[in-house]
Amino acid sequence: MSIATIKTEIRSAGSTYKIECKAGDKTFILDEPEELGGSNGGMNPGEALLNALGGCKYIVFKMFYQKFKIDLLDLKIDMEGQVDPDVLAGKNKNGKMGFMNIKTKYYINANNTKEEIEKFVDYVESHCPMQDTIVNTPEMTREILGQK
Amino acid sequence: MSIATIKTEIRSAGSTYKIECKAGDKTFILDEPEELGGSNGGMNPGEALLNALGGCKYIVFKMFYQKFKIDLLDLKIDMEGQVDPDVLAGKNKNGKMGFMNIKTKYYINANNTKEEIEKFVDYVESHCPMQDTIVNTPEMTREILGQK
Repeated sequence: MSIATIKTEIRSAGSTYKIECKAGDKTFILDEPEELGGSNGGMNPGEALLNALGGCKYIVFKMFYQKFKIDLLDLKIDMEGQVDPDVLAGKNKNGKMGFMNIKTKYYINANNTKEEIEKFVDYVESHCPMQDTIVNTPEMTREILGQK
Repeated sequence: MSIATIKTEIRSAGSTYKIECKAGDKTFILDEPEELGGSNGGMNPGEALLNALGGCKYIVFKMFYQKFKIDLLDLKIDMEGQVDPDVLAGKNKNGKMGFMNIKTKYYINANNTKEEIEKFVDYVESHCPMQDTIVNTPEMTREILGQK
C-alpha cells in the first residue's frame, strides 16, 4: 500500500460563481452560464465531473490497450448524463439532486474483433479510479475552518 | 421534472495521455505527470474530479448563503483525497481502485455563529449535485461504437 494524497484548491475568480480550480501549478476555471446568474467564464461542475470521469477512462484505456493486444487506430469518448435542475432549485422535492444516470460512449477504431474490444472495455470500466470513486463511494468528510 | 442532458467530449491532445476535455465551447486539458508517462500538460483526472466536486460546493454555497443570512466576507475551499496508486498498477490486489476518502475543508470568514455556519454547510453538503452523484451512485452505462 502506497497512499497518495491528492489536493486541490477552489478560489473565487472574481464574479459570483466564477472560480479558479487549482492542483499544483495547473488550473482551470469553472462558472455557470449567464441564464443561471454566472458569467459564462468556464464549464460548470457537472461538465467538469463528466470530463474528469471520461478523461480517466481515456487515460486507463491508453495505459493498457497494448497489453490487451488492441491494435488501436483511434479512440474518442463522449460522456452524457441527466440531471433535474428543478431539484436544486427547490421546485421538485422528490427528485435526485445530482446525476440520475451517466453514459460513456466509446468510439473505437481498432483492428480487433468485437469480443476483444468488449473484453478490454470491461477491463477499463473496472479499472478506472474515477469510475470506482462514483460506484464505490469513498468516505466523505468535511471540516469547517476559519479564514485562510 | 425538467430533465437536462449534459454532454462532454474527450479527445486526444497529441501526446500519450494528454487529452482535451470539452463541454460546449469550453475546454480544459488533462494529462499525467512525466514520471507516469505523461507530458505534464494539465492536472490529472483525480485532481479534476476533486475540483469539480469542490467547485460545485463553492457554487452551491454562493447560491444560497444570503437566504441563510450568512454575512459572508470570504470563502475558500480545499479538497483532499487519498488513493493507492498500487491498485491501478496491479501491485496491490486488495485495495480500492479510486478515492478511499475525500475531505472538504471549508475556510469561512463570516459574521455568524458557529452554529449558523455549521447548519448552512450541512445544507450545502446535502444540496450539492456532485456530492450527490458520488454518494448516491447514478445508473452507469456504457456503449461501444465504431469510428466517429
